[in-house]
Amino acid sequence: MLLNCDLGESFGAWTMGMDEHIMPFIDQANIACGFHAGDPITMQRTVQLALKHGVTLGAHPSYPDLQGFGRRSMSVPPAEITAMIRYQIGALSHIAASEGGLVSYVKPHGALYNDMMRDEAILESILLAISRSPHDLAIMAMSTADNGKLKALCEKHAVPLILEAFADRAYDERGFIVPRTRSGAVHKDSNIIIEQARNLATGTPIQSIDGEPLQLEADSLCVHGDNPDSIAAAEAIRKALKDLH
Amino acid sequence: MLLNCDLGESFGAWTMGMDEHIMPFIDQANIACGFHAGDPITMQRTVQLALKHGVTLGAHPSYPDLQGFGRRSMSVPPAEITAMIRYQIGALSHIAASEGGLVSYVKPHGALYNDMMRDEAILESILLAISRSPHDLAIMAMSTADNGKLKALCEKHAVPLILEAFADRAYDERGFIVPRTRSGAVHKDSNIIIEQARNLATGTPIQSIDGEPLQLEADSLCVHGDNPDSIAAAEAIRKALKDLH
Amino acid sequence: MLLNCDLGESFGAWTMGMDEHIMPFIDQANIACGFHAGDPITMQRTVQLALKHGVTLGAHPSYPDLQGFGRRSMSVPPAEITAMIRYQIGALSHIAASEGGLVSYVKPHGALYNDMMRDEAILESILLAISRSPHDLAIMAMSTADNGKLKALCEKHAVPLILEAFADRAYDERGFIVPRTRSGAVHKDSNIIIEQARNLATGTPIQSIDGEPLQLEADSLCVHGDNPDSIAAAEAIRKALKDLH
Amino acid sequence: MLLNCDLGESFGAWTMGMDEHIMPFIDQANIACGFHAGDPITMQRTVQLALKHGVTLGAHPSYPDLQGFGRRSMSVPPAEITAMIRYQIGALSHIAASEGGLVSYVKPHGALYNDMMRDEAILESILLAISRSPHDLAIMAMSTADNGKLKALCEKHAVPLILEAFADRAYDERGFIVPRTRSGAVHKDSNIIIEQARNLATGTPIQSIDGEPLQLEADSLCVHGDNPDSIAAAEAIRKALKDLH
Repeated sequence: MLLNCDLGESFGAWTMGMDEHIMPFIDQANIACGFHAGDPITMQRTVQLALKHGVTLGAHPSYPDLQGFGRRSMSVPPAEITAMIRYQIGALSHIAASEGGLVSYVKPHGALYNDMMRDEAILESILLAISRSPHDLAIMAMSTADNGKLKALCEKHAVPLILEAFADRAYDERGFIVPRTRSGAVHKDSNIIIEQARNLATGTPIQSIDGEPLQLEADSLCVHGDNPDSIAAAEAIRKALKDLH
Repeated sequence: MLLNCDLGESFGAWTMGMDEHIMPFIDQANIACGFHAGDPITMQRTVQLALKHGVTLGAHPSYPDLQGFGRRSMSVPPAEITAMIRYQIGALSHIAASEGGLVSYVKPHGALYNDMMRDEAILESILLAISRSPHDLAIMAMSTADNGKLKALCEKHAVPLILEAFADRAYDERGFIVPRTRSGAVHKDSNIIIEQARNLATGTPIQSIDGEPLQLEADSLCVHGDNPDSIAAAEAIRKALKDLH
Repeated sequence: MLLNCDLGESFGAWTMGMDEHIMPFIDQANIACGFHAGDPITMQRTVQLALKHGVTLGAHPSYPDLQGFGRRSMSVPPAEITAMIRYQIGALSHIAASEGGLVSYVKPHGALYNDMMRDEAILESILLAISRSPHDLAIMAMSTADNGKLKALCEKHAVPLILEAFADRAYDERGFIVPRTRSGAVHKDSNIIIEQARNLATGTPIQSIDGEPLQLEADSLCVHGDNPDSIAAAEAIRKALKDLH
Repeated sequence: MLLNCDLGESFGAWTMGMDEHIMPFIDQANIACGFHAGDPITMQRTVQLALKHGVTLGAHPSYPDLQGFGRRSMSVPPAEITAMIRYQIGALSHIAASEGGLVSYVKPHGALYNDMMRDEAILESILLAISRSPHDLAIMAMSTADNGKLKALCEKHAVPLILEAFADRAYDERGFIVPRTRSGAVHKDSNIIIEQARNLATGTPIQSIDGEPLQLEADSLCVHGDNPDSIAAAEAIRKALKDLH
């Protein structure tokens, strides 16, 4: 079980995230590509930091929306999504290659991630962008109770799939994360977070928000690096996962 | 002697340039990379059009300034210029690779082009971006009466140099093009344009605006595709160059 | 019956619309405010041109989306829509006031216009922005077969309503314009356009795309200034409306 | 002697500045207008906060450069500067008016501020924007040892002048602040800062970085709200100025 984190989300004079503090605890860095965050020199610094820690590089492309941080769904035709994903992957890949690194997967960001999970045309527009890349690239997507369609589409486009899950989020019975607006959506108790991480890592069912057992397949857990608490949680998860062996 | 042209300068709903009409007459397409013009799907269409006509692909990166079309000089530190050039080259390269093409040179755009010609730190920041690319890339820059420093810096960074000249612009005695604000700066008479093209192609000195002979080394002539007149001029230059053989 | 037109949609080096040619035939100019088109100096020139022709000034605010020309719906919370409408109205109003003019109405643009017509929360967020303005401002919105709710919300916020209709578009039986994707959606025959304009001006029912009579209340007809045909159509409508008296 | 501070410099998901903590200690809020920072809802919140504390509202317009935070000089023609200043003043003024407030002065931001202080054509392009405003607006500019030309240009355009000085910055003998790159450019010792504030408030000469006496006229001191230290300094200056009476 790997740990991934959204990184490189500063922009110009604005700083976001404690990238230097979270980097030692993760395996995969989802790096913003300039459309929701991450100007070129921020991307370059984030690549350098990840390479220094031996962390795998991932592209974190978005709708073009700095003001909304890529969190606002936009009605973009699939053909344009393909082109904008190619653009962002390329920008990061070239910066990475210039620093001796290699981008190895793509995790869409924010509203684009959510839209891809509910709309097959959007998912396919992204898979199309990835599959034509001259380098081998995987896609990182959200694991739910039924990953059948997701896996079928990835296979159709010959794109490897990295399934991610969340240790700090409550799930409904279909395996979708509960919206933040609902009470109990985010786990604060570190014992519960570590327990959920351990279960996801060992293939043990977790408990849905309604108390039902939920089996979730996962290759990577998404952790956060925006504040000291989230970094402590990531460190604790990292330690718990090591202790499993 | 090759012909190059700035292309792909539409953006979203706005159209600029008659790309389909000029493409048959040129060898090298300088394609906008999104910072002064050229959204992702425009870039993709321009790559497809160039590949269809067997035209070599070049990146045409710029300062980040859509509103000013990259024509406004900006005081950007060299390290940030390096990063933003890497970003733009990568974006276009990945779109090109996805379409089966390859970007083979870089021609900075507008104010960045002018700044590079007058400021060695800016030129080196661009050469640095190009030299670390995983693919071989040349730089296209303006030929003047004395290309010594330009050649020396390109050699220092092991970046091949493509010298460009202009058939439709008057030159001063140092081999710099005369600013458009000065009378006689732009040749309108097609006989003069073709004569200057022929002289540049055969290594014959041209005449400076003050009537002095001027020897200009050139690998490529810059032509324009924004209106029917400029396309007719490009076609005439193309024919004149063929007749030389 | 007045004529309105979307104007000032150039941006930086890109030109859109034949503003100088359409201006003599219209009464109300919907001027882009920088979010989908219209940089500050374009706005200033458009205001000057409208004032020269005695044309009433309207703000034409949009979602923040230059690349998509404001045609892509974005999931923006109503409170943020209110703030961005205030911003754009203010920017245009101040430019207008500096030139001795006054903005007197607001017509939302593109996707925001469509979203406002189908979502009352969005409509109210716009009315809220307009109603708190220090100057009296009307809203321009689309007339349909049933304007009851629209009128009630405008009254609630004490915002005068300008109902617009289209002479060159086919309507369905509910009084909504038929999407461009459907055959027959756009009238090309100038006799049909003029007939529809005349009927709308005299309160005579028009014919829906399915042949049913449709009564549409209208204060203003939307005409277009993007090409010679649309300008000829506007001129013909103008003449037909004059001949009614 | 008043205190002014740059505020409202957050943008979308990015936070900058401790606006709520500095607001109680200042008299004049220089509010970002969207071109270097400050999206519409951030502007609205900043206006609300300032009005709550009885702080005077000022517009803080910039070159259009979010990525560079308005700190990069751009070669923009004066006529375009006039239009972009009008745009930004209007956007903030309308938001302010909608909240029951009034913008009463303009302080250009960052590179535009510096360019205005060294280039009369740029200063006049800004004064022109201000002077044609339908509301009375002053300009805030930097006091130096010789304010003659600055005052003359403001008088020419009938724009009231607010001279600002810095309590925490070292000055050269011409009354220009010493660049941050030079040692001793920024005062860290709160005794020195308070002493300089007191001298500026009482018309007592301060000491230049080379030990010479320097007489600086000032109406307002610029304080900072980006960190707890700067807020403590502002509070101490405020107290020291009160104790003068």
